[in-house]
Amino acid sequence: MLILESFVGGEWVRGSGSPQALVNPTTEEKVAETSTVGVDFARAVQFARVEGGAALRAMTFAERGEMLRTLSRAIHKNRDALIELAIANGGNTRSDAKFDIDGASGTLAFYAELGKELGAQKHLLDGDGIQLGRSPRFWGQHVFLPRRGVAVHINAFNFPAWGLAEKAACALLAGMPVISKPATSTALVSFQIMKLFNEANCLPRGALSFVAGSPGDLLSHLGGQDVIAFTGSSDTGSAIRLMPNLQKASVRINVEADSLNAAVLGPDVSQGSETYRLFLNDVYRDMTQKAGQKCTAIRRVFVPQDQFENVRDELAERLRDTGVGDPSLDGIVVGPVATAQQKRDVTAGIELLAKEAAIVVGSGPFEPKGVPTGKGYFVPPTLLAAQSADQLARVHDHEVFGPCSTLISTSGKAADVAAQVAKGGGGLVSSVYTDDRDFAADMIFEIGPWHGRLVMGSEKIADQTPGPGTVLPHTIHGGPGRAGGGEELGGSRGLLFYSQRTAVQGSRPILEAILGKKETKG
Amino acid sequence: MLILESFVGGEWVRGSGSPQALVNPTTEEKVAETSTVGVDFARAVQFARVEGGAALRAMTFAERGEMLRTLSRAIHKNRDALIELAIANGGNTRSDAKFDIDGASGTLAFYAELGKELGAQKHLLDGDGIQLGRSPRFWGQHVFLPRRGVAVHINAFNFPAWGLAEKAACALLAGMPVISKPATSTALVSFQIMKLFNEANCLPRGALSFVAGSPGDLLSHLGGQDVIAFTGSSDTGSAIRLMPNLQKASVRINVEADSLNAAVLGPDVSQGSETYRLFLNDVYRDMTQKAGQKCTAIRRVFVPQDQFENVRDELAERLRDTGVGDPSLDGIVVGPVATAQQKRDVTAGIELLAKEAAIVVGSGPFEPKGVPTGKGYFVPPTLLAAQSADQLARVHDHEVFGPCSTLISTSGKAADVAAQVAKGGGGLVSSVYTDDRDFAADMIFEIGPWHGRLVMGSEKIADQTPGPGTVLPHTIHGGPGRAGGGEELGGSRGLLFYSQRTAVQGSRPILEAILGKKETKG
Repeated sequence: MLILESFVGGEWVRGSGSPQALVNPTTEEKVAETSTVGVDFARAVQFARVEGGAALRAMTFAERGEMLRTLSRAIHKNRDALIELAIANGGNTRSDAKFDIDGASGTLAFYAELGKELGAQKHLLDGDGIQLGRSPRFWGQHVFLPRRGVAVHINAFNFPAWGLAEKAACALLAGMPVISKPATSTALVSFQIMKLFNEANCLPRGALSFVAGSPGDLLSHLGGQDVIAFTGSSDTGSAIRLMPNLQKASVRINVEADSLNAAVLGPDVSQGSETYRLFLNDVYRDMTQKAGQKCTAIRRVFVPQDQFENVRDELAERLRDTGVGDPSLDGIVVGPVATAQQKRDVTAGIELLAKEAAIVVGSGPFEPKGVPTGKGYFVPPTLLAAQSADQLARVHDHEVFGPCSTLISTSGKAADVAAQVAKGGGGLVSSVYTDDRDFAADMIFEIGPWHGRLVMGSEKIADQTPGPGTVLPHTIHGGPGRAGGGEELGGSRGLLFYSQRTAVQGSRPILEAILGKKETKG
Repeated sequence: MLILESFVGGEWVRGSGSPQALVNPTTEEKVAETSTVGVDFARAVQFARVEGGAALRAMTFAERGEMLRTLSRAIHKNRDALIELAIANGGNTRSDAKFDIDGASGTLAFYAELGKELGAQKHLLDGDGIQLGRSPRFWGQHVFLPRRGVAVHINAFNFPAWGLAEKAACALLAGMPVISKPATSTALVSFQIMKLFNEANCLPRGALSFVAGSPGDLLSHLGGQDVIAFTGSSDTGSAIRLMPNLQKASVRINVEADSLNAAVLGPDVSQGSETYRLFLNDVYRDMTQKAGQKCTAIRRVFVPQDQFENVRDELAERLRDTGVGDPSLDGIVVGPVATAQQKRDVTAGIELLAKEAAIVVGSGPFEPKGVPTGKGYFVPPTLLAAQSADQLARVHDHEVFGPCSTLISTSGKAADVAAQVAKGGGGLVSSVYTDDRDFAADMIFEIGPWHGRLVMGSEKIADQTPGPGTVLPHTIHGGPGRAGGGEELGGSRGLLFYSQRTAVQGSRPILEAILGKKETKG
């Protein structure tokens, strides 16, 4: 049996005590086990802070970027082997696995490039210098300096590669050491990536540590210069935020949690048009890709009344034709959800939504392809539909984290639709499909404040947009309210969480000599 | 007896129930009373969100700025009357009162000017547009949109004018309605300012509400688009952050809390030099101004061993000569602290610090001038000194919020001093006095990440700097760790807390038509 180890304090460590099992969600067979009992997390934190922090701060952005490029290549070179692990431990189809693994190497490459652009400096200036006194002699300059602690990353089970890589890319480029903890259930891919990273031999000692399993008392050792970036459920996010030592020291905590992402079909869009097809493809992709286990997946689909039946019927037909089963087989689009618990939660969630919306596709007997009878954590793609937006409550409140979405009929008027979207209480991303600029403008200003990202789908970009479900490193990922209030990525914005913004006041020539000065464009 | 009222739901409301008393801390006589029992906070929140929010969002930045200018003038025109109230209810000297009141009108004027600069737009672009696809047709633009909730401001007793104004300036300019709650004990000045604001007749209905006393169940009505900006003790800040409804909706909470701000004398600075005098003046001002009740006041003074006795003796001499008593009298520099509880806390705090540092000035019998015997919440200016930095713990941990500071001898070496400063666990501001660029650079990089602001004192700016104790609207105010992890002001940075950053993805011409585009400089 493969036993996962943690990499802390500069060495691989095997936990003692009774291990947790990692299973193949298609066959329910054990693929590995892990334990972190006995791991010295106090020492792990101190080692990362002291050794890793000093080493990273001594590097320029360009050097840190070069390191990220090596990490990106380490993943890409081993892409095929990682895909196999993602199929075995994550229930990913080959396409799902590529989405995660290429997302990881791509995001590292993106931040490698940013590091190159930022060049030989070791800190970032924030805006221009400011005259503070009667004369420009008394001067102010805001600067971003790497925080002096460790960044603890806690990732969700759905992206064992991308989650690790996107968070680590931002922290390491900002000059902060990382302790990364993937979700235990799908940690096999993360573990293998950590091994590849070490073999690539580009990380300074202490720059990146890895916890294969329970984080034990890790968080109790954190203080005011440390940060936590968490992706997962609201409940766990809240439990972390309530820890007394984190409260007391105002430890920065970035939370990415639940999100009832909406897709809105504009009233101007006719059936069969390019924008209509883009909309339908995006909804279908988000319902099926990774068996719907994406925090950015569309959960609520708002369509004008006169398109309700068209959309319902077209989506239903595509979903009925979708191959569900062993994700290693050709023709399979939807694999199992990741764990037995996930299957229970998704099934219960669908039952809850079915109290206020009708199941169009997904109920009834169901046989996944190529799987031993009765085995695997499979949930059929499930479309629900509500002919009226009135009286819906759970649909706006309960995220079913699986291949499930609810279609909702609306008046199509911007104000009505915006009010419905806002009932989600804040989300990571929503998408609007329209070629009407007034409708587009209304939606941006009305639903924008409830989201970290909006995708304005239109015929102009139908051939280029990867849809709302894909997180690009250029733009921020996170959202207000229910979505946790967090913010990651977004180019250089992603470094700010790992930096302290400090206003330095003093003599202009002295500050400019020490900190440098902003080059003026043009 | 003057009875303070709250201004909520567009009208002045008098609370029922047994009132809280506001007293004159010099004479201990009651000057006013207030109650918020019976105030309908649910309605107050909804009214502000709906009426105030819509009205502010319909205004351009220039219009919001014009509104702030009117508010600034309303304060300035009534400066003398406000000073009298600050003396009567705050124990302020005339100079202390001006510091607060001019800070208020000055900050409003600063943000009025920023509004003018931002001009006819209603939202802010964040950075340049970004090519996201193969061609620039698929485009991304980050935008800051006003949040759709209400901003609740909870202020500390020490700045009833400035606290209200600086927070309101940022929120209103960002387009978010405000409910402002001053500390009850010194609310008289805030109440009068709110009356002046209403008389100035420039605020849309619901844009600014005012709670004169206990906030009752106000915070329980907040959700994911609302924000809270709190200034006060860590304990209260923590209690707010732990409220389940705020947790659940990830309500944004900005906390400015305790801070053990340091002043560091460089090893290069000789007694009597201009930099030395600047250092001494800053420490003396922060110990005496507002009876030391500033969150930015210097609490820990680090000096090289060879200057320890000089600094101790010079400071002691000035403090012994300092007039303490009725703040309305000429020649009085230090008035009473604000409340009986404050006096108890400060006295107990000094006793605590005296367990590890010697009291140089401040102990022994003490008679404030012009005050009825035994009356008033007076604490003598108190200097403590520790000849060794070893074994100090409470000095780095317990903020005495009064006219008290501790002098600490160090090696003068940058690394040693930085380690001592960091023991404060994160602060709002620290100051370094040196004309040695290497020492200055070491200190910026070593202690910068522990602070929201650093003041680098030197002979070059001795005639211009107002010292670390003065918060300028140009630069951020807030700090990591113990200081609460918050950030206010800093020019346009101050608006971001009240805005949602949203990444909008779509067709470039459509996004540019709706959102505008960044003008390129040069």
